[in-house]
Amino acid sequence: MIKFALMGAGRIGKMHAKNIFSNSKSKLEIVYDLNPHSAKEVANLYGCNIANSPEEAILNNNVDAVFIASATPTHIEYILSSAKAGKAIFCEKPIDLNINKVNQCKKELEQYKVPIHIGFNRRFDASHHSLKQAKVKGEIGNLEMIIISSRDPEPPGVEYLNAAGGFFRDTAVHDFDLTRFILGDDPITEISAYGGVLFSETAKETNDLDTAMFIMKSQLGVLCHINNSRRAVYGYDQRVEIFGSKGMIISDNQSPTSVKKFTNNITNANDPAYHFFIERYDQAYKDQLDIFINCINNNKPTLTNFDDGRNALLIANAAYESLESKKSVKIDYS
Amino acid sequence: MIKFALMGAGRIGKMHAKNIFSNSKSKLEIVYDLNPHSAKEVANLYGCNIANSPEEAILNNNVDAVFIASATPTHIEYILSSAKAGKAIFCEKPIDLNINKVNQCKKELEQYKVPIHIGFNRRFDASHHSLKQAKVKGEIGNLEMIIISSRDPEPPGVEYLNAAGGFFRDTAVHDFDLTRFILGDDPITEISAYGGVLFSETAKETNDLDTAMFIMKSQLGVLCHINNSRRAVYGYDQRVEIFGSKGMIISDNQSPTSVKKFTNNITNANDPAYHFFIERYDQAYKDQLDIFINCINNNKPTLTNFDDGRNALLIANAAYESLESKKSVKIDYS
Amino acid sequence: MIKFALMGAGRIGKMHAKNIFSNSKSKLEIVYDLNPHSAKEVANLYGCNIANSPEEAILNNNVDAVFIASATPTHIEYILSSAKAGKAIFCEKPIDLNINKVNQCKKELEQYKVPIHIGFNRRFDASHHSLKQAKVKGEIGNLEMIIISSRDPEPPGVEYLNAAGGFFRDTAVHDFDLTRFILGDDPITEISAYGGVLFSETAKETNDLDTAMFIMKSQLGVLCHINNSRRAVYGYDQRVEIFGSKGMIISDNQSPTSVKKFTNNITNANDPAYHFFIERYDQAYKDQLDIFINCINNNKPTLTNFDDGRNALLIANAAYESLESKKSVKIDYS
Amino acid sequence: MIKFALMGAGRIGKMHAKNIFSNSKSKLEIVYDLNPHSAKEVANLYGCNIANSPEEAILNNNVDAVFIASATPTHIEYILSSAKAGKAIFCEKPIDLNINKVNQCKKELEQYKVPIHIGFNRRFDASHHSLKQAKVKGEIGNLEMIIISSRDPEPPGVEYLNAAGGFFRDTAVHDFDLTRFILGDDPITEISAYGGVLFSETAKETNDLDTAMFIMKSQLGVLCHINNSRRAVYGYDQRVEIFGSKGMIISDNQSPTSVKKFTNNITNANDPAYHFFIERYDQAYKDQLDIFINCINNNKPTLTNFDDGRNALLIANAAYESLESKKSVKIDYS
Repeated sequence: MIKFALMGAGRIGKMHAKNIFSNSKSKLEIVYDLNPHSAKEVANLYGCNIANSPEEAILNNNVDAVFIASATPTHIEYILSSAKAGKAIFCEKPIDLNINKVNQCKKELEQYKVPIHIGFNRRFDASHHSLKQAKVKGEIGNLEMIIISSRDPEPPGVEYLNAAGGFFRDTAVHDFDLTRFILGDDPITEISAYGGVLFSETAKETNDLDTAMFIMKSQLGVLCHINNSRRAVYGYDQRVEIFGSKGMIISDNQSPTSVKKFTNNITNANDPAYHFFIERYDQAYKDQLDIFINCINNNKPTLTNFDDGRNALLIANAAYESLESKKSVKIDYS
Repeated sequence: MIKFALMGAGRIGKMHAKNIFSNSKSKLEIVYDLNPHSAKEVANLYGCNIANSPEEAILNNNVDAVFIASATPTHIEYILSSAKAGKAIFCEKPIDLNINKVNQCKKELEQYKVPIHIGFNRRFDASHHSLKQAKVKGEIGNLEMIIISSRDPEPPGVEYLNAAGGFFRDTAVHDFDLTRFILGDDPITEISAYGGVLFSETAKETNDLDTAMFIMKSQLGVLCHINNSRRAVYGYDQRVEIFGSKGMIISDNQSPTSVKKFTNNITNANDPAYHFFIERYDQAYKDQLDIFINCINNNKPTLTNFDDGRNALLIANAAYESLESKKSVKIDYS
Repeated sequence: MIKFALMGAGRIGKMHAKNIFSNSKSKLEIVYDLNPHSAKEVANLYGCNIANSPEEAILNNNVDAVFIASATPTHIEYILSSAKAGKAIFCEKPIDLNINKVNQCKKELEQYKVPIHIGFNRRFDASHHSLKQAKVKGEIGNLEMIIISSRDPEPPGVEYLNAAGGFFRDTAVHDFDLTRFILGDDPITEISAYGGVLFSETAKETNDLDTAMFIMKSQLGVLCHINNSRRAVYGYDQRVEIFGSKGMIISDNQSPTSVKKFTNNITNANDPAYHFFIERYDQAYKDQLDIFINCINNNKPTLTNFDDGRNALLIANAAYESLESKKSVKIDYS
Repeated sequence: MIKFALMGAGRIGKMHAKNIFSNSKSKLEIVYDLNPHSAKEVANLYGCNIANSPEEAILNNNVDAVFIASATPTHIEYILSSAKAGKAIFCEKPIDLNINKVNQCKKELEQYKVPIHIGFNRRFDASHHSLKQAKVKGEIGNLEMIIISSRDPEPPGVEYLNAAGGFFRDTAVHDFDLTRFILGDDPITEISAYGGVLFSETAKETNDLDTAMFIMKSQLGVLCHINNSRRAVYGYDQRVEIFGSKGMIISDNQSPTSVKKFTNNITNANDPAYHFFIERYDQAYKDQLDIFINCINNNKPTLTNFDDGRNALLIANAAYESLESKKSVKIDYS
């Protein structure tokens, strides 16, 4: 039974609280949120304690693992406190938006031997995972192309955007990680990025982008394309395609039902895709938690570690450099 | 080069004229239609002669084969004249609506050795044919069920219905034949029929049906279902499913394009199915003609013969008997 | 908080125990099973008490509702004990295999005012339910046909078959209920049934069937077809189609992933369908429980009641009569 | 009746000969090929004359239009001879592989007022065309992204590659044109290109590429991605996706049948896609010819003109420049 301290009881924190509660191998011990009202809500629903400070949660003797689902600027602080206290760490992405802070954190972490998992939820989706497994089993032969279409249902507000670190670090970073996940041992070596503001007022106000495309090349020469948008009216668009010498595998979108409609206008029409990540990756979040718990219980390394979080940020930074310079940019992981 | 006399230059006759013209192995020699205007139209388009009487067309010395696409009541007369004249015969279904006349015709035909093909176009559709071939190759193991959904886009007018011989002999007869085609050597032995008038004014006026369902059993115990409607707003619905010990094969509907639409209401929506048989079975009609020509040229037996036309009618008659008696009816092919 | 006594801790009982445990509005209070080992297993997993007799579970003062998931012959006994004790009842289908016993039970129940829900899980599947809602909203206009394909992955063993009451009462009964669910106020009035043993040794040994087809007619003339098989190698086949004046809706099969494969042999290939009802209707079972709890909490009538269980059995009995007599059989609900 | 001289009787020439023959509004008057055997084959099949020199074909008095399907290096010579002779011109893509020659040809053509059509067949595919029409009608609102996946079934031989002008000018050029077709009035302004040799021995031998990816930006900011491969084992992959403020439209792959297979391994599996362009664009080639004929008959401008051929080449050249410089390259259409 792994006992968790939960840092952050906002939308995503509440979802994690429910998953910790429902998993028969874990228990929600204590919750902390800057907003005491949010913390109390979670405590009432799932019968846990409330911490009055981050330390009270992290240092709690009953706590085995710290689940960091708070605002991004707190992540490194909580990671380091948890590591010092010898707790296992589950940290929602990103580690931080500033690569220097991430590098500094990496150095400090070297002295602590705690398991740390960065929450790249898509790796744990049954369909994306099945695609990866098929690649590993050689079902498509030699991998030659990866194509990811990843579009949010609607653009977020100004407040969110101001804290998000930019479209590439906030959104595309998931797809950079998914590309890395599929490539496995073969690192991405260069990237070209295009972007624009085609529709979003909030993107314009915050000097951000709402539409982007990337090409990346791996060391073995695999060509990878990602396209991103902040708005897709037919729901959360999450498609992954891998192509190789023996065929192609697509992890396609999913709808809440398997209903098909036929009218005088259309045939075979499915419902819109799941609305957003909470719905689309509902099971992936549960499975990710379960796998994290199993890793701790069995003293196995976590499946997405600190370097996964750092490397995805390095690619996002290189993408911004390419957007600026209009050149292909090499990625330096050192 | 097979030279054809075409009997009947209505809608379906015109389509066959075009196909004869376009096939490099055939030539349209002469056309006859009760309505001289229709015959002239075809003659102008495809550069053939016009006959002033059925005999003039059928007995024409240049003519190798007679294509009968005229009104149903003329079919037997033209079949027999053509047979006497030693011409190969392609006769659109049905042979006749009256089984006694069909039996009499069968007896008379015994003395003539001419090839005769009955126009059950669906057997020659690439998808239905591929389904049949997969069954023959054993891809689904032992056949256990056949399920056919077959629905016209909209009900015909009173004039058509008055001449059509009833829903089972006019429409379901195609599906009885398709079931026989799939079953191959294994004959249908009994049938139960249900029907009703659920929407069509013209069906009501003509004492006909607009909706029907059948279950049939074959000698080997295969269970077969057919459902029919005179109206499907999403286009001509033509689905065939076979199910067996090793799997299932479906020959699905087809649309004019492979376009898929995604809006805030729907995803993966295709265009409506092809409107009706002329569009859906366009290629099947061409292939059927080509195969008929090859049979003649190579002295091979035709692929759908007189008995195929007769047997489908026997099943339709048994279906009417079942509808009346509310019992399962055995089918007597003798 | 609804506190449950669970009767029966076999495969299906265990699944219900988990669902009761996970639902934040219910609690598993006590479990009873003839086999103490099974009861103990459930008690260990979900922290509930163990009853030494059915009465001890049903009459327990803390218990609000009795969940009957035990062997069929015990259902009526437990229903009546629970009713007498004033407990709400959730009873897995069937009520009983003998219509006389069901009728007797119905009469006795009249004196008790307890809520009773019969577990027809398919009504609570999101896709089938969405299909029904679309029909109610008039999306397909007037309903004219219902077509259900319902096939198990593999035939059960002799022991199961000996207790199951025959293919129509065990399996087709779900589809009779689903047809009734879609028809709503419009009752099924007659049925024709076909069946055979095409592959299953255990069906042959137990004098049962493994393949069946039905046509039913409703009072308003809707034609309904069901086909059933005890074996489908591509997984649990659960398709429902409704057809009407404005279009068609299909509730299609579902696979564990949305992966599509493309090789030199095939394109667009999905994984096999979910293996069987536990997987396919996983969420439906949870939703069914939740709705039952809400009905009790809000003093609303249950959504599938005693008569739903009885009427489905009456149709199954009429189907056997038709199979025997080879006639269409009228259904008498009195 | 438009009378054609056909230049070139190779594989593609033969297909065009058949289409000219089958179209009731055109006639194949005369054919020329360097190889007299090829010319004779066409003449025998479709009953036309044989020219002993290009001039004999082009200058023939009966000829209204010249169809240029010969080797690329002959295109400009035949275009100019035909223009001087006042004949309408249908020229297979490309005009030439050298932009200076194309520019020189353009200048010379200014003095002649003959219709000229460049054979970009994909614009005339019913599905791609329907996608474009839906965009024009505003069905997806403002266009924001175009994504084209275009992959040949297998790499060509060394001889073909030596004459083809490189992967971008030979293959990607079709997709550059299709992107331009969809964008309409909004020109492509810059491009980034990636490429590699991942599998093809013949590509390596000829210093060519077998795999490529592009990002392009239009003047209005639309982001466009193309990916190309010389080999797709599941058939000729030809997918086009457009995405905008109101939704998405995909023109998907097509198979010879609508058959779906279900086994213990897979469900919903279609046949492989059409093998290659001759099969996939069979109807598009016929429709393209028909539209060209109608343009001449009605004195309307052709739908793909000389500048369409030139502009696609300019983009391909810019793509090579980007591949070399690893920079985004602006496209200069002057």
